[in-house]
Amino acid sequence: MNPRRIADLAQELGAKLIGDPELSISGVAGIREARPGDLTFLANPRYEIHLGETRASAVLIEEAKPGAGLAQLVHPHPYLAFLKAVKIFRKERSRPALGVHPTAVVYPGAEVGERVSLGPHVVIDEGAKVGDDCVVMAGSYVGRGARLGKETWLYPNVVVNDDCVLGERVTIHPGTVIGADGFGYVREGEVHHKVPQVGTVLVGDDVEIGANTCVDRATTGTTVIGAGTKIDNLVQVGHNVEMEENVIVVAQVGISGSTRVRRGATLAGQAGIAGHIEIGEFAVVASQAGVTKSVPPNTQVSGYPAQPHSVARRIHALTMKLPRLVERLAQLEQRLQALEEERSDHHVRSRS
Amino acid sequence: MNPRRIADLAQELGAKLIGDPELSISGVAGIREARPGDLTFLANPRYEIHLGETRASAVLIEEAKPGAGLAQLVHPHPYLAFLKAVKIFRKERSRPALGVHPTAVVYPGAEVGERVSLGPHVVIDEGAKVGDDCVVMAGSYVGRGARLGKETWLYPNVVVNDDCVLGERVTIHPGTVIGADGFGYVREGEVHHKVPQVGTVLVGDDVEIGANTCVDRATTGTTVIGAGTKIDNLVQVGHNVEMEENVIVVAQVGISGSTRVRRGATLAGQAGIAGHIEIGEFAVVASQAGVTKSVPPNTQVSGYPAQPHSVARRIHALTMKLPRLVERLAQLEQRLQALEEERSDHHVRSRS
Amino acid sequence: MNPRRIADLAQELGAKLIGDPELSISGVAGIREARPGDLTFLANPRYEIHLGETRASAVLIEEAKPGAGLAQLVHPHPYLAFLKAVKIFRKERSRPALGVHPTAVVYPGAEVGERVSLGPHVVIDEGAKVGDDCVVMAGSYVGRGARLGKETWLYPNVVVNDDCVLGERVTIHPGTVIGADGFGYVREGEVHHKVPQVGTVLVGDDVEIGANTCVDRATTGTTVIGAGTKIDNLVQVGHNVEMEENVIVVAQVGISGSTRVRRGATLAGQAGIAGHIEIGEFAVVASQAGVTKSVPPNTQVSGYPAQPHSVARRIHALTMKLPRLVERLAQLEQRLQALEEERSDHHVRSRS
Repeated sequence: MNPRRIADLAQELGAKLIGDPELSISGVAGIREARPGDLTFLANPRYEIHLGETRASAVLIEEAKPGAGLAQLVHPHPYLAFLKAVKIFRKERSRPALGVHPTAVVYPGAEVGERVSLGPHVVIDEGAKVGDDCVVMAGSYVGRGARLGKETWLYPNVVVNDDCVLGERVTIHPGTVIGADGFGYVREGEVHHKVPQVGTVLVGDDVEIGANTCVDRATTGTTVIGAGTKIDNLVQVGHNVEMEENVIVVAQVGISGSTRVRRGATLAGQAGIAGHIEIGEFAVVASQAGVTKSVPPNTQVSGYPAQPHSVARRIHALTMKLPRLVERLAQLEQRLQALEEERSDHHVRSRS
Repeated sequence: MNPRRIADLAQELGAKLIGDPELSISGVAGIREARPGDLTFLANPRYEIHLGETRASAVLIEEAKPGAGLAQLVHPHPYLAFLKAVKIFRKERSRPALGVHPTAVVYPGAEVGERVSLGPHVVIDEGAKVGDDCVVMAGSYVGRGARLGKETWLYPNVVVNDDCVLGERVTIHPGTVIGADGFGYVREGEVHHKVPQVGTVLVGDDVEIGANTCVDRATTGTTVIGAGTKIDNLVQVGHNVEMEENVIVVAQVGISGSTRVRRGATLAGQAGIAGHIEIGEFAVVASQAGVTKSVPPNTQVSGYPAQPHSVARRIHALTMKLPRLVERLAQLEQRLQALEEERSDHHVRSRS
Repeated sequence: MNPRRIADLAQELGAKLIGDPELSISGVAGIREARPGDLTFLANPRYEIHLGETRASAVLIEEAKPGAGLAQLVHPHPYLAFLKAVKIFRKERSRPALGVHPTAVVYPGAEVGERVSLGPHVVIDEGAKVGDDCVVMAGSYVGRGARLGKETWLYPNVVVNDDCVLGERVTIHPGTVIGADGFGYVREGEVHHKVPQVGTVLVGDDVEIGANTCVDRATTGTTVIGAGTKIDNLVQVGHNVEMEENVIVVAQVGISGSTRVRRGATLAGQAGIAGHIEIGEFAVVASQAGVTKSVPPNTQVSGYPAQPHSVARRIHALTMKLPRLVERLAQLEQRLQALEEERSDHHVRSRS
């Protein structure tokens, strides 16, 4: 990821440069995270107020803003140009040295591909297969019969249990556990008998999974993480969950057993999803939501138990007005009592 | 776990077979998780609708259902028969090779029992004891003075800190940490001074703990996990918590310091339990509940702050009706105003 | 941490002893956690009811309580005296042997200070620096270019990724991951492209971080944990978060990207904090709160979405009264209808 002259970058992106052509750009970032040396972008007018505060050195923008105080790359589609820049600046992760470290343990019967990097104290257990160009960093464990597809990368201290299968270009961050037993017991009196968890986990191509996350193996059959899905840190994926492609799962989400998450859905931070339900395609579950029943495609839910987001917002707004509602109720009671007393007086007077 | 002829299985379970006696059964599972080759059961009529959709090859059932489309094992107590089948099919976890791997480090003064399997890069620190028939898998660490009872199994990368004691037949899944320091500080001005955490952890017999869970050591004394208790992944157990026997703790639950959980209680996923309270025997805490005070035995609580479940349900139902309540209130105000105006007219007319 | 005669301790703390001068005190603890042999304290009258139940052997107290049943150390400022006792009894963690274990791997170009303890299977990667008097326990990994300040202590199986910097006297409990990639993608159609996470993490002096916690590296720039901050287990700290000094973060909290937490703030268990906001100095976020916008200094918030605590309490109290409100509403409707019917009768009668 060498820095580039912004004039060269402008040419590469097909943008018009306003600013010093010799400015050096070394990375890309969102407008609020950017630091000096970064290129950012402005696509959503909602973020225009951040333009004055960004520390970025340059911005991709649809129309030039005079006096913006940073270099501008004017482009009809700033977001698409930014995507292109992301690909240009994608850091080639500085790859560990090729080869098998002398302290790594590769069991007999394990197969290791070409051009792999197996770090110190790595264990590749019996019958496991590690594809070409894989990186397995220090202290990671690949269980018996497990398989890693080509170019898959395990950071340090990852555990992939026996018979689990990871696709190609999968990235797993440190401390994550793929294929621990699902949580399944049957109760007899007060005692819980374990239901054998004899299934596995299948992780599709181009999946990325954060640190200290758990993806449990299926009771029978397969827990599935679809291709292109991205999972954050400290997430719990229960046994027999099936996620489709390009799902986004933010940190500390929990998904209970046998739930299906359809393609493109987003589960925001700390949400909890009950078992045996379905989250529809492109549905969005808000952070901390507690989802107890299936969510239709292309909808948003929030709250506990989760409701359509517009309902949850309305209910919340009314809840916040409860003090005023109680006042109105008390006033009504007083006014009504006044009327009743008056009528009663009237009757008394009528009779008298 | 060799497959069995269903006719043999029927005989073993004392059930009457309806279907092909040569059918091969290779496992057991719940009706919704089951795959071809599995035996499932139908005990709860609520699940009868799943009978048409199950992928199981056979079902244990109280009364034969003609045309159910899968083999049936008719038995007066399908659930008890299923329990028996679970025990028959319990997978003998394919045990790692006996012996101490050459890369394992056993410190002087540590004691290791008979027929143990210590995997690659395992560390058994000074004065630790590992009981007979234990399995400690790759990268796990057993601290100074810690003890593992007979037949206890640590999956890869587990940490059992110094002086913690695990009973017999305990299973700990990967990445779990037993005996990290409790979170205890005293504040002096703005500075937090650490309160030494000099207690330990005691884990009873037949406990199973999931992956990446944390059970903190006591400040003084002992954090206790009772015999037969089952804990899922990513659970936080604070210092000085005492759990009794056969408790169920689902994923991502947090239990604050010094709380006692009585036998047979269930804490559902992502629930949070305050410190210094008691969860009664066989109480059930719903998922995502926030429990701020003690819960009586044999009750259910839900919501935040947690209420008896029936109260929480009723309050929730009324909250969802707030829009209608506000309408009724507005109508009352209009009607009352009409009455008041009429009375006022009447008075005016009376006086005129 | 040798036990002391309480008479000696009284002298050291400047307290007046009521009780047997030969009593042996071996530790300190809160009044509810204390065990025999412990010294506790009573500063808050709210806890006086615990004095009869505590298992402590002695109590620091402002005024002598006759018949309290345990030794008393009378002191005008019991809490300050307790703080002094905490420092006296602070356990010198029994330090692992000095030196580099033969199974540890120190890469060429790594620098290791004086008097360090590097345990079995530790990895210090290329260009990393380990300060004087550091302890790095079994299976921990210090990445390329990462730095540990003096007297920093990593428990087993900790991961400090490349280029992350830890200050002096930092303690990290087992399984924690410092510097995994932040969760940042840009969407193009249905596909998520990774935004390179090229920043780092800076952990200040005297920070303590619990077990299985994750602190993500910045997208660009630095994720910061301020000096003296204490973080519990299973916490998620997103990319570009900046925490100031002496923050308290309880177990299972999640802090989204680019949020700033000012000095002295407290985030209680399982709270979730949105991204790009600010938690003010000495603010307190209640457990399980969902914070969606900035919190002013010196305030308390709770609930979802989080409100000032007094508002949240009032709203909750009214919500619990909804059944009564609905009754009152129904009574009003009946009474009003009675009035309306009477008026209507009256009109009819008037006309007849």
